[in-house]
Amino acid sequence: MSRGPGRAEQPIGVFDSGIGGLTVVRALRRLLPGERIVYLGDTARVPYGNKSHATIERYALQAGQILGRHDPKLMVIACNTASAHGLAALQAAAPCPVIGVIEPGAEAAAAAKGPVGIMGTLATVQSGAYEDAIRRRNPGALIHSLACPLLVSFAEEGWLDDPITDAICRRYLNQIPFEVRTIVLGCTHYPILMPSLARTRPGTTWLDSGELAAQAVEDILRGSLGFRTGSARGDLRILLTDAGTRLQEIGARFLGEPLETVELVEL
Amino acid sequence: MSRGPGRAEQPIGVFDSGIGGLTVVRALRRLLPGERIVYLGDTARVPYGNKSHATIERYALQAGQILGRHDPKLMVIACNTASAHGLAALQAAAPCPVIGVIEPGAEAAAAAKGPVGIMGTLATVQSGAYEDAIRRRNPGALIHSLACPLLVSFAEEGWLDDPITDAICRRYLNQIPFEVRTIVLGCTHYPILMPSLARTRPGTTWLDSGELAAQAVEDILRGSLGFRTGSARGDLRILLTDAGTRLQEIGARFLGEPLETVELVEL
Repeated sequence: MSRGPGRAEQPIGVFDSGIGGLTVVRALRRLLPGERIVYLGDTARVPYGNKSHATIERYALQAGQILGRHDPKLMVIACNTASAHGLAALQAAAPCPVIGVIEPGAEAAAAAKGPVGIMGTLATVQSGAYEDAIRRRNPGALIHSLACPLLVSFAEEGWLDDPITDAICRRYLNQIPFEVRTIVLGCTHYPILMPSLARTRPGTTWLDSGELAAQAVEDILRGSLGFRTGSARGDLRILLTDAGTRLQEIGARFLGEPLETVELVEL
Repeated sequence: MSRGPGRAEQPIGVFDSGIGGLTVVRALRRLLPGERIVYLGDTARVPYGNKSHATIERYALQAGQILGRHDPKLMVIACNTASAHGLAALQAAAPCPVIGVIEPGAEAAAAAKGPVGIMGTLATVQSGAYEDAIRRRNPGALIHSLACPLLVSFAEEGWLDDPITDAICRRYLNQIPFEVRTIVLGCTHYPILMPSLARTRPGTTWLDSGELAAQAVEDILRGSLGFRTGSARGDLRILLTDAGTRLQEIGARFLGEPLETVELVEL
């Protein structure tokens, strides 16, 4: 692995179970427009939210190996489920630093006033990763975690301004006590449902784990890895394990810009 | 491959993208209680409904290879999406006859009076497999196909007597013209949603592709492959590629009996 000044020019590798992690890429490109990004979405095996620890960990290691071919200066697991179950293994195996989206979200949650809520997939909630990370920082924190298995499907389907989506959000959010005023969006798909969530529970502070992870990336680059030089906008390569139907349409919604060419890789 | 009288004692291999195909196993065990069944559910990579043709075909071939180790007398692809995209390839490669769930469903649909509706995943509907199979039998058939991407998630989540599930079913079914009185459940997950579907569209004849496939299996065994001898109930082996959370609970709902031991296989 090369180090030193040339290293800053290397891309950031971003891994997600599918295309929800493009919300993290969107935040990265807004915050750090000069950085080059290689995104790997495991669209052939998405979603990870109901899979077991062993399977998710294995998939994360395979994804890290693919991203490693691009010699990234940093890898970001832009998926809460994969962060909860695969981060430690990938950190141990990868030839560069690796961060997930849970620690940045937990950092903000631990600093919140009053009890906090965590919304996530079943696998993320069952891992207890958010509770652990928040209690390391604030041992007395009051935390209400809630698995919301159907929200990923709704985000991917794109029923964004829809009474049925509102009804689903209401069903889930009503299970979090009303005194909870700070809720972590513990899945990178959820920010796209913000209109429904906000309508359902006004006055809530929503912590976007993907947005917070992008800020953490900026801190790490500033601290040691370095920013890419020059003023040109960094390129974005998108690698997917399956180019399913409606991908351009749904991907663009998460990324906030059109998806240019997509490359297929086999996993 | 062995043939002759001993062959009838061999199990039926059933492949599905996940556990929805257990509705087909349920029908098989009711219709043919003496038969041994080996079920392979690709729970690590479920759902297939939004994946591409190439990926689904590859997954079907891999699954057929695993089932082949059990020397089945017949393989059943108990998943409409995998039947639509993987049946031809698996038939060409497998050491035994292979049937899918689409031809039996199409057979019944072609015999129906008036226009027919097809509900399925995006990949099933986009394949045009039902239209092709129905029009081979009835070239003038009027067919209304509708992709219902969210229904699989609702079936797996088990919100079975629920106003939100009713609302989703209504949203989808209202897109099929009211003069359509026969609708094919072109996904083996859908029968579990029958209470909501029936409430939404009373007076409809629902064709259950899985149930019809089980009848087709009976015909094939009677015709050439032979029934297993003896009166003992056949054993059921369940192989899964991931033993995720809530599997016993959700699987039992589809199978209609408790899931005994489950074996993990890697795919």
